[in-house]
Amino acid sequence: MVKQERAVRTRNALIAAAAEDFSRLGYSPSSLLSISRHAGVTSGALHFHFPTKVALASAVMAAAIQRLHQIVERCEKRMPPGGALQLLVDAGHELVQQLREDAVLRAGFDLEGDPGCPRGVGEVRRHWHQWVQATLQCAEEAGQLRPGVSVEQVASAVFVCTVGIQMLGRRDTQWVSRRTLSRFWYLVLPRIAAGEGDLDAAGTC
Amino acid sequence: MVKQERAVRTRNALIAAAAEDFSRLGYSPSSLLSISRHAGVTSGALHFHFPTKVALASAVMAAAIQRLHQIVERCEKRMPPGGALQLLVDAGHELVQQLREDAVLRAGFDLEGDPGCPRGVGEVRRHWHQWVQATLQCAEEAGQLRPGVSVEQVASAVFVCTVGIQMLGRRDTQWVSRRTLSRFWYLVLPRIAAGEGDLDAAGTC
Repeated sequence: MVKQERAVRTRNALIAAAAEDFSRLGYSPSSLLSISRHAGVTSGALHFHFPTKVALASAVMAAAIQRLHQIVERCEKRMPPGGALQLLVDAGHELVQQLREDAVLRAGFDLEGDPGCPRGVGEVRRHWHQWVQATLQCAEEAGQLRPGVSVEQVASAVFVCTVGIQMLGRRDTQWVSRRTLSRFWYLVLPRIAAGEGDLDAAGTC
Repeated sequence: MVKQERAVRTRNALIAAAAEDFSRLGYSPSSLLSISRHAGVTSGALHFHFPTKVALASAVMAAAIQRLHQIVERCEKRMPPGGALQLLVDAGHELVQQLREDAVLRAGFDLEGDPGCPRGVGEVRRHWHQWVQATLQCAEEAGQLRPGVSVEQVASAVFVCTVGIQMLGRRDTQWVSRRTLSRFWYLVLPRIAAGEGDLDAAGTC
């Protein structure tokens, strides 16, 4: 293996181990020593890649933001027949599924809500909120929103709901499920959609 | 001041100081020594009342659960004209307001979502979820729910939303507001209420 490849692997192993520890213990109680051990990496190698815990948390957050963007891009590519509104529902379900499966994405959300974590490390939740708003804006421009329904209002409810699901999932993963999010959309979708169309609260992917 | 009164005051000061530290730092990084200092109490007095950090966290949680019960009882007493459904909306707004103002109630919610906090200390969120379910059950029995709307479904959405609001409020208190919860109810209320009645998403209290 060439040197550069090995460096990338080490870096990724450290990010994965840090994500695990940050979520399981919280940011403050996590130690660089224990993270380097979990990654199977020497303390020296860790300090070479990440001189401080903040640098490591920033790298976890950056990776989480990247994965969020991959999720929404994947959904945008297979744009469902229901347009922007169905896209919003589908991307939410995809996010929830990845929050179950992807420890790095989960750690990004956890870090942003962690009182011990410095604010400067980045905000994956904010990126999600902005994408939700932009997608609802598209839905509105396409005439998909019922008159009187405001983009801000719906974006706020969707955002609060997804953060709640992720938060509850820290203690009981059953909450992080298609079922929980479907229940929300089942109530909200008929209220905000302009037509009586074929939108599916349980997602089309 | 008689001895017993002083003991109650000391105990309450310790609970208030612990609530503050648990929310601000997280459970794991909080130390009994620092909590006793914040409470203006000797370390010996702290250990007399609470021999362990878990005992102190359990006392904070018990106080939070008690305050939650006071909130819903207060709302139940002035039972709004809109019946159980309006009661649910009003109690949610009252809860959100108290989450802003009452550090002990907030600490209970924070502790339950804290990965470092042992599970045995109690669950104020679960109490809230159960009350939401019971109140929706009353609404259903009174014919207030639209046919086809399930108690479980609505309870899940309400619960997830309130937990999300509380969670977002840890970083930005603006989320913990009547506005955020009203936005949710504005979308959900017309969808679940049987009649076109005078229910108010912004609460009647």
